[in-house]
Amino acid sequence: MIGIIMGSESDMRVMSAAADVLKELGVTYELTIVSAHRTPHRMVQYAESARSRGLKVIIAGAGGAAHLPGMVASLTTLPVIGVPVKSSNSIDGWDSVLSILQMPGGVPVATVALDGAKNAGILAAQIIGTTDEVIAANLQRYKDGLREKVEDSVRNLEGK
Amino acid sequence: MIGIIMGSESDMRVMSAAADVLKELGVTYELTIVSAHRTPHRMVQYAESARSRGLKVIIAGAGGAAHLPGMVASLTTLPVIGVPVKSSNSIDGWDSVLSILQMPGGVPVATVALDGAKNAGILAAQIIGTTDEVIAANLQRYKDGLREKVEDSVRNLEGK
Amino acid sequence: MIGIIMGSESDMRVMSAAADVLKELGVTYELTIVSAHRTPHRMVQYAESARSRGLKVIIAGAGGAAHLPGMVASLTTLPVIGVPVKSSNSIDGWDSVLSILQMPGGVPVATVALDGAKNAGILAAQIIGTTDEVIAANLQRYKDGLREKVEDSVRNLEGK
Amino acid sequence: MIGIIMGSESDMRVMSAAADVLKELGVTYELTIVSAHRTPHRMVQYAESARSRGLKVIIAGAGGAAHLPGMVASLTTLPVIGVPVKSSNSIDGWDSVLSILQMPGGVPVATVALDGAKNAGILAAQIIGTTDEVIAANLQRYKDGLREKVEDSVRNLEGK
Amino acid sequence: MIGIIMGSESDMRVMSAAADVLKELGVTYELTIVSAHRTPHRMVQYAESARSRGLKVIIAGAGGAAHLPGMVASLTTLPVIGVPVKSSNSIDGWDSVLSILQMPGGVPVATVALDGAKNAGILAAQIIGTTDEVIAANLQRYKDGLREKVEDSVRNLEGK
Amino acid sequence: MIGIIMGSESDMRVMSAAADVLKELGVTYELTIVSAHRTPHRMVQYAESARSRGLKVIIAGAGGAAHLPGMVASLTTLPVIGVPVKSSNSIDGWDSVLSILQMPGGVPVATVALDGAKNAGILAAQIIGTTDEVIAANLQRYKDGLREKVEDSVRNLEGK
Amino acid sequence: MIGIIMGSESDMRVMSAAADVLKELGVTYELTIVSAHRTPHRMVQYAESARSRGLKVIIAGAGGAAHLPGMVASLTTLPVIGVPVKSSNSIDGWDSVLSILQMPGGVPVATVALDGAKNAGILAAQIIGTTDEVIAANLQRYKDGLREKVEDSVRNLEGK
Amino acid sequence: MIGIIMGSESDMRVMSAAADVLKELGVTYELTIVSAHRTPHRMVQYAESARSRGLKVIIAGAGGAAHLPGMVASLTTLPVIGVPVKSSNSIDGWDSVLSILQMPGGVPVATVALDGAKNAGILAAQIIGTTDEVIAANLQRYKDGLREKVEDSVRNLEGK
Repeated sequence: MIGIIMGSESDMRVMSAAADVLKELGVTYELTIVSAHRTPHRMVQYAESARSRGLKVIIAGAGGAAHLPGMVASLTTLPVIGVPVKSSNSIDGWDSVLSILQMPGGVPVATVALDGAKNAGILAAQIIGTTDEVIAANLQRYKDGLREKVEDSVRNLEGK
Repeated sequence: MIGIIMGSESDMRVMSAAADVLKELGVTYELTIVSAHRTPHRMVQYAESARSRGLKVIIAGAGGAAHLPGMVASLTTLPVIGVPVKSSNSIDGWDSVLSILQMPGGVPVATVALDGAKNAGILAAQIIGTTDEVIAANLQRYKDGLREKVEDSVRNLEGK
Repeated sequence: MIGIIMGSESDMRVMSAAADVLKELGVTYELTIVSAHRTPHRMVQYAESARSRGLKVIIAGAGGAAHLPGMVASLTTLPVIGVPVKSSNSIDGWDSVLSILQMPGGVPVATVALDGAKNAGILAAQIIGTTDEVIAANLQRYKDGLREKVEDSVRNLEGK
Repeated sequence: MIGIIMGSESDMRVMSAAADVLKELGVTYELTIVSAHRTPHRMVQYAESARSRGLKVIIAGAGGAAHLPGMVASLTTLPVIGVPVKSSNSIDGWDSVLSILQMPGGVPVATVALDGAKNAGILAAQIIGTTDEVIAANLQRYKDGLREKVEDSVRNLEGK
Repeated sequence: MIGIIMGSESDMRVMSAAADVLKELGVTYELTIVSAHRTPHRMVQYAESARSRGLKVIIAGAGGAAHLPGMVASLTTLPVIGVPVKSSNSIDGWDSVLSILQMPGGVPVATVALDGAKNAGILAAQIIGTTDEVIAANLQRYKDGLREKVEDSVRNLEGK
Repeated sequence: MIGIIMGSESDMRVMSAAADVLKELGVTYELTIVSAHRTPHRMVQYAESARSRGLKVIIAGAGGAAHLPGMVASLTTLPVIGVPVKSSNSIDGWDSVLSILQMPGGVPVATVALDGAKNAGILAAQIIGTTDEVIAANLQRYKDGLREKVEDSVRNLEGK
Repeated sequence: MIGIIMGSESDMRVMSAAADVLKELGVTYELTIVSAHRTPHRMVQYAESARSRGLKVIIAGAGGAAHLPGMVASLTTLPVIGVPVKSSNSIDGWDSVLSILQMPGGVPVATVALDGAKNAGILAAQIIGTTDEVIAANLQRYKDGLREKVEDSVRNLEGK
Repeated sequence: MIGIIMGSESDMRVMSAAADVLKELGVTYELTIVSAHRTPHRMVQYAESARSRGLKVIIAGAGGAAHLPGMVASLTTLPVIGVPVKSSNSIDGWDSVLSILQMPGGVPVATVALDGAKNAGILAAQIIGTTDEVIAANLQRYKDGLREKVEDSVRNLEGK
C-alpha cells in the first residue's frame, strides 16, 4: 500500500498522475490531503502511523516552500518520494525543487522532476517490485510499452 | 523575550550575530538548538509553548532545505523571523533562501538576507519597539550610530 | 494602525490582499501610493513621520529594482515588511525578491514571498498581536480556519 | 545487496559516504566504476544484469552533464537513486542536479541533494527496510541517534 | 548524409527546422525517432552503425534531462550536434541546455541555442562544407541572403 | 567633474579603479562615501546639489540590495552610472546586478558589469567626450592602447 | 543627434519607446537596422563613422546572444547604451542581459533594464543634457511629470 | 588545419588544452590572440581570410560578455566552435555560456562546456575525421583509451 498525500486539493491536478500509474501497475494506494503548514499535527500523526498502518512508501507533493515531503521524512523510516509542484505562486518551480531536494544529511527525500507525479508512482512501484515479483513483471511490461510506443512512432514517421 | 533557534550548533557561526545585536539593543533572549528534521517533536513543543512561555518573537535560522522557520510559523501565531543560512552543502544559498521565503498564503515567515542574523535581531527589536519606548529609543540610537560611522568614513577619506 | 504603501496604482492588483486580510483580522490600516523613484521626498516624509503619526508597522510593495521597502526601512525604526511584486517588466520576479531581501546589516526588511501581500498583512497582524490579545485571538481563529478548510477538503475527497 | 556506481574514481571523495552509511545500517553493497560516456557497454551490461545478480537498489553518482543515473534507470526496473556530484567543471552543481532530476515521464530517478551520497545510502536502506525488519530497526536506531545528537548539543549549549 | 534524431514525435515541432534548412542548403539527411530512455538499445545500435552507414554528422534533439546527444556522442566518433528542446516539463529550458552542454572531457557535444534546430542544420552543413565546395557555396549564398534581408528591412524602414 | 560615490569604505577595493582610469583619461573627479541606507539625507542632499555644484556624471557603486545608484537617479537629471559590487554578503552578485539594472521606466541607471568600476570611469569620460575634444582624443588613445597590448601579446606568442 | 539601432525589424516592438521618449524630450535621433551577425560590415561602418557624422550617443537593442551593443562599443569612443531585448528565443532574457552587461574592462556598455528602451532614450537625453540647458530643462519637466502622475494616483485613491 | 583563437593571453590557461589534444590526435593547428572588443578589425580579417588560408574549423575561446565566437561565425561559413571561459570577472560562467550559446537563427556556434577547451579540440578533430580516415582512426584509439582508463580504475578499485 502506497500513501499519496498533498498540501491542498488544487495539487490533485498534478498528483492524480501518481495514482493513475499505480493503478495501471497493480499497486494499491490511499490518497488524502495533509498540509505541513495548515495541519501540522495531522501531518505528524499521518507520518508516525504510516508504517504500522501498513504503508510501504509515501508519495508527498507540494509547491513553493515545500516542507511536506521533508517533514514527513523526519517522522518515519519509510522511503518518502517528493514531488515538487509548480504552483501558481512558485518562482518557476525552483522553490519547490530546492526545498524538497536539498535535505540535510540523515533525512533523505527521493525527489522526482518538477510536476513529475507519474514518475513518483513508478518509483513507488519499483520499490514494491524489489521484493514483489508480480509488480516487477508489471514494471517490465510497462517499460516494454514505452519502447513499443517509440517503435510505433518510428513506423508512423517512416510511413509518411 | 526573543527566542533564537537553529538547526545545529554549527549554525552558531552565523546566528550568534542575532544574539549580539539583541544584547546591544537591550532586548532579552533565549537561544537553543531545535532541528525540524532531527527533533520534530521538540520543534512542535517549542513552537506551541512559545507564546505561553512569554516569547514575543521567534528567530529561526536554517540552511539547505530549510524547514525550521516555516514549520515553527505553522505552529504559533507569534511573528517568526527566518534567517537563510548558507551552509556547506547549500547550492550558493538559493535553497535556504527559497525554502524560507516562499511560504504559502496564511503562514508568513519574515525573511531576512542570506546569513542576515544581525538584521533578524534588529527586526525582532523593532517589533518589541512598536510598544516599548525604551527599545525604540535604543533602535534610534543604533540607527544614529550607523550614520555616524559613515560620517567618520567621510572625514577619514577627506583627511587622506 | 498599519501603513500599506506601493509604488503605483497598478500594484493594487497584488497589494489589496494585504488590506483584505488586515480587515478580516480586525487590524486598522491606511493605504496610499508612495514611489521611491518618482516621489522620493514624499517617501522620506512618509517614513519619517510614520511613528509619530501612530503607525506600528509599514507594508511596502514594489517590483523590479524594488527600492521602496529598503529605503523606508532606512528612514524609520518601525518594522518594515517588504512584498516583492512580480511586475510586468520583472525578470521572473528575481529582481524584486533580491532587491528587497538582500538588505545590508543594520537595516532589515521583513521579506515575504513573491506577490505575498496576504502574508504581509498576517505578519503585520502578528506583530500587533504580540501585545494585543484581541488580535492574537483573531489570528488563532484565522489559523484554525486554515486547518478546518483542509479538514473539509479531506472529507470532500473521502466522500467522493 | 545495493550496487553503488560512479563515473570515475575521483567521485569516491563524495560517494564513499553512501558505502559508509550502508555499512553502519547493516546493508550489504558492492561498489565499482561505471562511466556512461566512457564505458557505455559496461553500463548497459551492469544495469541489465543488476536484478538477476540480486541487486535491489542502484545508487549512481555523477557530475556535470550527469547521464549515468538516468541511463541506468532506462535499462532496469530496479529503483535507481541519483547523486548529483559537484565536480570541478560543474556550473555550481546546477548541471548535475538538473540532468539527474528532470527525467521524462516513465523513467524515474530518485534524486537526493547535491553531494548527498549519505542520504542516498539511507534511502537505499529505507527501501530494503520496507520488507526487512532488521534493517527497519537499524534505521529507527539511526534516526534516534540523530535526535540524541541534537539533544546533546542542547545540553552542551545550556551548560555553557 | 546527416542523421537527425529526437526523443519523441512531439519534438518534430522544433526539430523539423533542421531538416528544412538542410534541404535548402542541398544536404541530404535522414530523420527518425530514437529515445535514450525508452529505446536505449536502438540508440546504441543507431550510434554505433552511424559511421559505417555513411552518416557524417548526427543532430540530436532532446528536452528535460536530455541524455540523447551525450550518449550518442559516447558511442561514435562522428561529430554530434545537440539541440536543447524546451519541452513542456522543462524548467525554462535550463535542464535541457545544461544536460547537453556540460559534457565531461573526452566526449564533446556541439551544442546550439535552446530550440535552435535551424542552427544545428546550418552547422551540419558547415561541417560538410569544410570539404564539399558546392555546399560551401550554398552556405555563402545563404549568408548573403541573411544580409540582404536586413538590407531590405533598412530600405523598408527608410521608405516609411 | 565626475562624482564617485559608494556605500562604504570597503567598496574602495572595487571603486578605486573608476578614479584611476578617470585620472589616466584626464577627467577630474571627486570621491566620497554616501550610503543610501545609513545616510539617506546625505544622499538626498548629494544628489540634488550635484548639478549645481558642477558635476556632469555620477558614478555610484553598491552591493547586495543596492539602492544607491537608483535612488540618486531619482533625485537628479544627471546621468548616473551604477557599478554592482560583489560584496561579501551578496548572492554571487546577482542581487547587486538586478537591484541596479532593473530600474522602472522613467528613471534610468547606466549599469556596467559586476565589479566593473573601470568601465564606469571610461563611460563617464565618454560622456564628457561627447562635447570635449581633448577627452575624446584621450579616449581614442586609450582605445589604441588596448589594441596595441593585444598586438604585443600576438608578437609575444609568435616569438615563443 | 542620437543613433538608435537594432538587429531586426521585430525589435521595433520594444525599441520604438526610445524614439518616442527622445521626441518627447526634444532630442533628435535617427533610427535604422544594423545586425551584428547578419551585417557585420554595415555595423563596422556605422560605428566607425558615428562620431564624424555628428552622433553623440548610440542606443543599440538586441536579444539572445546580443553582440550588437558591445561590438559597436569596440568600434567607437562614443557612449553606447545597450537595451537587452527579451526576444522569442531568449532564455527568460538572461542571455540578452548578460551578453550586453558583462563587457570586459576597457569597453563599457551602459546597460538598461530588460526591454528598457524608454530608459535608454532618457539616459541618452541626460547625456545631451550634461551640456545642453534646454534638454536639461526638458528632463526636469519630465521628472516633475512622473511625480505629478503619482500625486494624481494618490488623490484618485483617496477620493475613492 | 584548425585555427585556435582567444581574447587574451590569460585565456591560454584554459585554451591550451585544445592545442594539446589536437596534437595528440595528429591534427595541425595554429594559435593566436584575437580580441573582438580590442582588435575588431583584426578579428574581421582573421575570420574572412580563414577559409582561403586553408583553415577547416575555428575554435574561439572567450569569457564574460563573450562575443568572439559569434562574431567570427558571422564572418565565415566555416564551423566555429565556442569555448565559454570562466574568467575572473564572470558571474559564475553564466555570462560566458549564454553569450556564446544563444546565437540567433542563421549563425550557429558549436558550443562546448564551460572551460571545455579539450572537448573543443576533440570536436574539431571529429569534423576533420568525417573525411580523413587517419584522424578518424586516431579518434577511435582516443575513445578506446578513455574506456581503458575506466577499466584500469575498476581493476584498481577491486584490487583494494
